[in-house]
Amino acid sequence: MSRLLDLIRSGRGRVIVAVDDPLITLSRFKELVMKTKDVVSGFKLGLPYILSYGLDSIRSVITDFRDTYYIADLKLADIDVVMSLTTKVVCRVGFNGVIAHGFVGLKGGLDGLKSVCDELGVDLYIVTSMSHLGSTEIYDLVIDKVLSVVEGLRPTGVIAPATRPEVIRRVRSYLGRTYLILSPGVGAQGASPGSAICAGADLEIVGRAITSSQDFVKASEEVIKSQLKYLEVSRCY
Amino acid sequence: MSRLLDLIRSGRGRVIVAVDDPLITLSRFKELVMKTKDVVSGFKLGLPYILSYGLDSIRSVITDFRDTYYIADLKLADIDVVMSLTTKVVCRVGFNGVIAHGFVGLKGGLDGLKSVCDELGVDLYIVTSMSHLGSTEIYDLVIDKVLSVVEGLRPTGVIAPATRPEVIRRVRSYLGRTYLILSPGVGAQGASPGSAICAGADLEIVGRAITSSQDFVKASEEVIKSQLKYLEVSRCY
Repeated sequence: MSRLLDLIRSGRGRVIVAVDDPLITLSRFKELVMKTKDVVSGFKLGLPYILSYGLDSIRSVITDFRDTYYIADLKLADIDVVMSLTTKVVCRVGFNGVIAHGFVGLKGGLDGLKSVCDELGVDLYIVTSMSHLGSTEIYDLVIDKVLSVVEGLRPTGVIAPATRPEVIRRVRSYLGRTYLILSPGVGAQGASPGSAICAGADLEIVGRAITSSQDFVKASEEVIKSQLKYLEVSRCY
Repeated sequence: MSRLLDLIRSGRGRVIVAVDDPLITLSRFKELVMKTKDVVSGFKLGLPYILSYGLDSIRSVITDFRDTYYIADLKLADIDVVMSLTTKVVCRVGFNGVIAHGFVGLKGGLDGLKSVCDELGVDLYIVTSMSHLGSTEIYDLVIDKVLSVVEGLRPTGVIAPATRPEVIRRVRSYLGRTYLILSPGVGAQGASPGSAICAGADLEIVGRAITSSQDFVKASEEVIKSQLKYLEVSRCY
């Protein structure tokens, strides 16, 4: 079972903080982790951030704060050999999970990546649909095929967009309760905190609403409070 | 017009060397560029390689050898904000082009990335189909939609797999001569040198067949010789 589920069950907020923009300095990122790691469930680092600061710098933060959960959000979408090499490289610095695109398919693609993740003890999350409008142009048209790839693969969880709650409902209804659903698009991208959880997600991914704040703890606690309020008002329980 | 086209027209071989595996040391990569830059048309660096050595190290090689062409093969597949940030970060070290996935769609996705590439003077290549078998599970089923995204976007070129020449023919026939077609899958992945060009590609992407060789120049020249022989024997001209 994923350590992420343990963290949720231990009472951390249902929030993963997304760190993408290199304008967030490394010392601010360290401060973010130090101050919010007992409030939120984990941190998702995007490709621009990891590339900007380099894996050695990221390792130094991860090593200092081991009692949380780190996802390398590289949106892997390559052949098995390349995705596996990448995963080996990033997980050496302590990431607990990686994200790959369902679009890539199993044979010679996600199948090989899954084996490497299993060997390394790393959680794998599969994108089933994305938070921007362009996702409706192609991705969402084949969502059933992507979900059947997920069923064939049996990853730790999937990614489905908070900006289109009907997609989260579709994903939850197709996959049942077996997989964690992580949902980006909350805050700056427009979805209200709590709305994705109400539609069936386990965790909401929040970036700028927390990382742009001067007070990380206050901003995180406000997101969590807003989630609870949304769930109560919308009678999601 | 892309500098890559200039390099081809100046007589460089129709080969882009793919560098993915971190086992290729930085000094070997430097040697590869130094020795083959007048033989091949450019170099494509994969995500595991860039992450392993870091952008500063990559910059040092690119800066030493400016008279060739470098593609950052991160297979971008994210929302516009994230892909744009990533492109700004990698292009600061001197890459001439980036690769993104067509399945991401235009709105809030590739549209924004294209604007940033235009601002930075960086070439954009769009994946239309991949070289592994998993590509036939989803990607190839929506190839016409991906190609219509390409037409809406007007990038420098596209990526289509040497392992399935019928896909290259489809892409060339749909897009006409407007776009460069770069084709991976030659060598270790099974396609014969020359077969993708014969099907309509402009350049073949070759990795291990060159990077695993003790003699980079000889291996590159052998690939180019094989290409020419294939084109002659198969009467592709």
